[in-house]
Amino acid sequence: MLRKFLAFRILFRKDKDLLISLQEILGFYPKNLRFYKIAFTHRSASFKENGIRVNNERLEFLGDSILDAVISDFLYHRYPNAKEGFMTEMRSKIVNGEKLKELARLIRLNDFIVQKGNTPKGSITKIHEDAFEALIGAIYLDQGYYKTYKFIISKILKKYIDFEDLEDLNLNYKSQLIEWAQKIKKPVIFVSKDHPDEIKCFSSEVVFDYKTIGIGKGHSKKEAEQNAAKEAISFLLHSF
Amino acid sequence: MLRKFLAFRILFRKDKDLLISLQEILGFYPKNLRFYKIAFTHRSASFKENGIRVNNERLEFLGDSILDAVISDFLYHRYPNAKEGFMTEMRSKIVNGEKLKELARLIRLNDFIVQKGNTPKGSITKIHEDAFEALIGAIYLDQGYYKTYKFIISKILKKYIDFEDLEDLNLNYKSQLIEWAQKIKKPVIFVSKDHPDEIKCFSSEVVFDYKTIGIGKGHSKKEAEQNAAKEAISFLLHSF
Repeated sequence: MLRKFLAFRILFRKDKDLLISLQEILGFYPKNLRFYKIAFTHRSASFKENGIRVNNERLEFLGDSILDAVISDFLYHRYPNAKEGFMTEMRSKIVNGEKLKELARLIRLNDFIVQKGNTPKGSITKIHEDAFEALIGAIYLDQGYYKTYKFIISKILKKYIDFEDLEDLNLNYKSQLIEWAQKIKKPVIFVSKDHPDEIKCFSSEVVFDYKTIGIGKGHSKKEAEQNAAKEAISFLLHSF
Repeated sequence: MLRKFLAFRILFRKDKDLLISLQEILGFYPKNLRFYKIAFTHRSASFKENGIRVNNERLEFLGDSILDAVISDFLYHRYPNAKEGFMTEMRSKIVNGEKLKELARLIRLNDFIVQKGNTPKGSITKIHEDAFEALIGAIYLDQGYYKTYKFIISKILKKYIDFEDLEDLNLNYKSQLIEWAQKIKKPVIFVSKDHPDEIKCFSSEVVFDYKTIGIGKGHSKKEAEQNAAKEAISFLLHSF
């Protein structure tokens, strides 16, 4: 009986500690700790509940799409005159693996994640990225859409994202394309020309498998190549 | 003066008609018709507002991600024990071009869309699919997340989606892969074997460019090929 009571006390203290640490990140006290415990449980540390293996993969699925929705709304209002293409690009600059890993590191998710196996201490991996998305899913289930919205805007975007930097950041489409071509062991060739009589005086074609799959123009060779590579990637992705 | 008054009356009557028709689809009266008018405006019929070209592309960007979020939440609760992979597949069976076109047709979006140029009467195209997503964006801005949620669940999913049918529907990965390979003019080969001594007694390998890019097993040759094709598509997509 005493042992049970002590175990309960320890459990209770652990939950209290988790509650307090979470409050520091979230800015509010969770209502239902269970969602957050699941969000931090990597597949390698799955536990059973009523015969079902539980880990954060389902919450990651949910959180991923909630994060997308909130960021889309935010960008829609932040850039009232921007075109859809610009907003899509900005969103993918925020919601990509590397950025999410960085965000996971910044809010110290590392301290919460439960996993088995050897991960070098302090290293930030896909596990952290997934846990970040799962955390968004947990907040959504615990607090609803608008509190999640508020959390993402005030505790993540406004705190850690420099939008002006991000606007300037050029995603490197050319290197993405070359990397992909190397993986499938096919050459991809950039054929660039200059047209001294035109305003955008450089053009570039991406040739893959004897076929032009992207064309771009630009004020510099680099810009033309990037635009061509972007079109080529879009062609390859949309071919499915 | 009289002319102005009559023009105002006609405009007012048009808005009233739109309001009534929308109420029939939505189940509520819109607060701000402007969002809906934009949602139905195809790029070809863009209009200017304070010097900015306005059409439904921005709302489509927003609506697309709101739709995803709502459907993810719905699936999360409808299938409390399903794995993330199953939910992702179910979502893509609902939120794909063909299905959205069908939904646009079922809620008679055709009557609302404003476009220029020749589209054969009654034909349902990408324009309708985009307008459907833009409508979701309009409802979200006009009514907020939870009313949009309610609309999608009660007026779309429960009315037009047969989930049991959808569960059984096998996305044809093999034909998707072959179609893609034909576009880039490279052969893709399925090498299948049977293993009479195993439970899943068929296996299949997808060979593309002298390299195995997907392996699948199954109770039939068809199932093995589908699984292999699915893995191959995932490989190609994730290589970016």
